[in-house]
Amino acid sequence: MNARLHDAGGYDAVAFGAWRTRQQSAVEAALSRWVPADAPAGLGEAMRYAVLDGGKRLRPLLVLATAEALDGEPHAAMRAACAVELIHAYSLVHDDMPCMDNDVLRRGKPTVHVKYGEAQALLAGDALQALAFELLVPGDGSVSAALSAELCRRLALASGADGMAGGQAVDLASVGVALDQPALEAMHRRKTGALLQASVLMGAATASAPPPRMDALSTYGACLGLAFQVVDDILDVTADSATLGKTAGKDAAADKPTFVSLMGLAAAQSYADATLERAHEALRAGGVPRPDTLHALADWVGRRAS
Amino acid sequence: MNARLHDAGGYDAVAFGAWRTRQQSAVEAALSRWVPADAPAGLGEAMRYAVLDGGKRLRPLLVLATAEALDGEPHAAMRAACAVELIHAYSLVHDDMPCMDNDVLRRGKPTVHVKYGEAQALLAGDALQALAFELLVPGDGSVSAALSAELCRRLALASGADGMAGGQAVDLASVGVALDQPALEAMHRRKTGALLQASVLMGAATASAPPPRMDALSTYGACLGLAFQVVDDILDVTADSATLGKTAGKDAAADKPTFVSLMGLAAAQSYADATLERAHEALRAGGVPRPDTLHALADWVGRRAS
Repeated sequence: MNARLHDAGGYDAVAFGAWRTRQQSAVEAALSRWVPADAPAGLGEAMRYAVLDGGKRLRPLLVLATAEALDGEPHAAMRAACAVELIHAYSLVHDDMPCMDNDVLRRGKPTVHVKYGEAQALLAGDALQALAFELLVPGDGSVSAALSAELCRRLALASGADGMAGGQAVDLASVGVALDQPALEAMHRRKTGALLQASVLMGAATASAPPPRMDALSTYGACLGLAFQVVDDILDVTADSATLGKTAGKDAAADKPTFVSLMGLAAAQSYADATLERAHEALRAGGVPRPDTLHALADWVGRRAS
Repeated sequence: MNARLHDAGGYDAVAFGAWRTRQQSAVEAALSRWVPADAPAGLGEAMRYAVLDGGKRLRPLLVLATAEALDGEPHAAMRAACAVELIHAYSLVHDDMPCMDNDVLRRGKPTVHVKYGEAQALLAGDALQALAFELLVPGDGSVSAALSAELCRRLALASGADGMAGGQAVDLASVGVALDQPALEAMHRRKTGALLQASVLMGAATASAPPPRMDALSTYGACLGLAFQVVDDILDVTADSATLGKTAGKDAAADKPTFVSLMGLAAAQSYADATLERAHEALRAGGVPRPDTLHALADWVGRRAS
């Protein structure tokens, strides 16, 4: 078997690498076009600093890969891809602030509040959230109202009290608390899982995927989200800050419950692998037409080094 | 002339008072239903504390009055009314935080970060913004996709870098700076004007108002927003903290430019009156069908004591 053409996951690893690089560039260009440089009083500069030139763009890639797999609408998918990334970016800005994680390093650069001050960081995060929704409803009619409304609803649900913000509240409250595995998973399902899952489902929405396929993709997104977090916990203890581009060993230092503290390193790795296999299986069971890139993204999440 | 039936503005002041009380109660009930008590780890409690049992509900009243004037869709109007109030409420929570205005008193109660801590206040604000958009796209189809999309777009534009958040950034940057009147008005047009104007236009959207009428209502909203701020500046120097329910004299103490510092108290009052007259005139020029409550709201803004 030719490793260039097909790795163990059954997809072309080189083609996936090229796809990823191409889409990361496209997302970067779209974000650069849509995050306003001219927002007043330095706000635009802080917003762009928070968003541009950074990160793996996993959430946008999930949106775009799902849309491509189902032959979704490319322009709407790119708007959705950027919208989920703006939500992710704003959550990092707020999460890094002194009253939350008080972190000074993000993606290898000073965090937004270190660079621009806390007030500007707070406002930049707020404005990025608003911009995410604005992107989903272009004024030029280039996305249908039905699709805009569905995308807004999915993004709002994944971002709010029952999604990301709620998960962060649980996270805050669980420092030094002995969460069991179901409670830890419930927390992460909100904190990071909801937006990752929404990324997949928003991509699917651009293709008006029928309910059974949405269910399969929902399972794929949930498993990928869980595996992402387990690997995150593993990297927190095995990688260094330079590789991560953020402070390593943070969770252990903060006495936060993690999959590693709960089950040990080897079992956490096995659990990540098994969870990713469930993601692959969901794609197969759902009969997703062109699933290669989604398979590849799942493995990419599981094998990442940062 | 019977003062009970018609005050100088040509509307029934007693009927307006009854309408206001009735709608304030309806908004309170809707907010109580829609802001989740069960959001995890105290987040729901902080969100409800930030939103319920407080404020004049000016923005929701503007949405509802405009919808009523144009025979708009009541259910969509109530959702829009609550959505704009959630945006307003989140902005107050974040604005009161130590890194912004560092205020301890709001609506006569301890501010959210004083009561629940800064991290929870930050998250509550973030979740309230997401909830605002969620309300505009109910999952039950009770608001058409076209209207949901329009409401989301108007709310996002009014809240973000080109609206409220942008205005707050300018406000932050203008402490101790000698703004002239156009610059001061441009700042307030974003900071408070955009959301007040959006309230009017979102109400009008529920009735699919035609462009010329939207233009007239846009002018009404802009003038009302400007007058609101001029009166705010007047009250900051003439009212006490107990009446305001927030710290009086704050702007002067912070060396922030205001309409009073710029033009003096008497001229500021005249300017507020003249601006409100432009709001009334826009309603007349736009041929708004049942404009009484909108006229009354403009006067209510101009004559308020807090």
